[in-house]
Amino acid sequence: MTGELRVIPLRGIPELDEGDDLAALLVDAAVRSGGFEQNDVLVVAQKAVSKVEGRVVDLSEIEPSPEALELAADQDPRRTEVILRESREILRTRAPLVIAETRHGFVCASAGVDASNAKGPDTLVLLPLDPDASARRLRDQVREAAGIDLGVIVSDSFGRAWRRGTTDVALGVSGTAAILDLTGERDSKGYTLHATEIAVADEIAGAAQLVMGKTDGIPAAIVRGLSPAAGDGRGSDLVMPRERDLFR
Amino acid sequence: MTGELRVIPLRGIPELDEGDDLAALLVDAAVRSGGFEQNDVLVVAQKAVSKVEGRVVDLSEIEPSPEALELAADQDPRRTEVILRESREILRTRAPLVIAETRHGFVCASAGVDASNAKGPDTLVLLPLDPDASARRLRDQVREAAGIDLGVIVSDSFGRAWRRGTTDVALGVSGTAAILDLTGERDSKGYTLHATEIAVADEIAGAAQLVMGKTDGIPAAIVRGLSPAAGDGRGSDLVMPRERDLFR
Repeated sequence: MTGELRVIPLRGIPELDEGDDLAALLVDAAVRSGGFEQNDVLVVAQKAVSKVEGRVVDLSEIEPSPEALELAADQDPRRTEVILRESREILRTRAPLVIAETRHGFVCASAGVDASNAKGPDTLVLLPLDPDASARRLRDQVREAAGIDLGVIVSDSFGRAWRRGTTDVALGVSGTAAILDLTGERDSKGYTLHATEIAVADEIAGAAQLVMGKTDGIPAAIVRGLSPAAGDGRGSDLVMPRERDLFR
Repeated sequence: MTGELRVIPLRGIPELDEGDDLAALLVDAAVRSGGFEQNDVLVVAQKAVSKVEGRVVDLSEIEPSPEALELAADQDPRRTEVILRESREILRTRAPLVIAETRHGFVCASAGVDASNAKGPDTLVLLPLDPDASARRLRDQVREAAGIDLGVIVSDSFGRAWRRGTTDVALGVSGTAAILDLTGERDSKGYTLHATEIAVADEIAGAAQLVMGKTDGIPAAIVRGLSPAAGDGRGSDLVMPRERDLFR
């Protein structure tokens, strides 16, 4: 993975609805940008994937539980109720901030529940039920439509402990590496590298974010030039197992 | 920031020693890759910067304290002593892993103290004393040598809470944004984005890591195509202030 990398935004993808053929829209957008190439990794924003999968909630249909009413403080308790339903465990709260572990094991703000860029102020977008399956499905559909086997990453913006700001990370992965394991490899001086695991899929997601922006309606990007020996990892590989986690 | 991004590895930089003219070596390497361009961001691995700044320690000169002897378990207590000296606070330990807050406020494994790729098994490389000053100095030296004002990021590989693997982050920043603050901006549907801060310098560092690798002796990369309105942040901006931190 020592060649030059290109990160190409995919433009002209319209506002999405449940059931839309996202793969076809991505292929069309890629064609307008010169087409896919072998070993490309396609990064797609979680929100685009969630919308076509119908992972949206209408707040008018939500009845907040007593727990949600208590936790919500001056926020909309229906939104808090949705967050609680998406959570396996609440790690920290400082209103309006809720840091939760999702049912997938991701630790993030609001259990990944997001309002911005949605259908309206009363519509929330949830994370996909199984982001790895979403990535796999998009990969299959793009291969069907365009005859090329890409890597696919479903990305989202997560905050971090100890550092300000969000970076995009990989929730779902198919056809590309999630983690590059250098344990046992030797560095340029001949020393063995101890337990060096690089979260390459998170770095790829972050690189894609730099061209996708938040406000521009660009829900996807191509990352070109990664090593063809990139592998086939899973987004779930990037979740630290609870028993190894020093911070849960 | 919606154009195409290019990430270009800088090759042919030799093993570095204290006092080496890193800026001149980077400019030479850039010339071999077609030269710098306006608005390029130059990402340089912390280890390269630390070596030329003489931030290396010879273990044979270290006398471990009783605390280091106790914490070291079956590791070299002299190495543990160096980690303790670089730390403001030890957050977690699970031998051989030590998660520490450095004197700069960074939270990372071994307080950033690293052996691999160093001069020999008895030589450790420490983080720069002031990574923002290191970035600023490199930026000044490159402008002096090549007549172009770049952004500069000094990067290192950090682990994260809750997620496996490391991603590269920005320790020092000069001449480019650290955080892109979208608070108050509107998304493509017209909704205000609440408190959206993107750690762009960390994402840029991560993108550069994808071409730098760990084992290839490529200590720097150019990231080209970022918005010219990128700003002038600091690596210290990326450290979550202790009073706002939910995880310290």
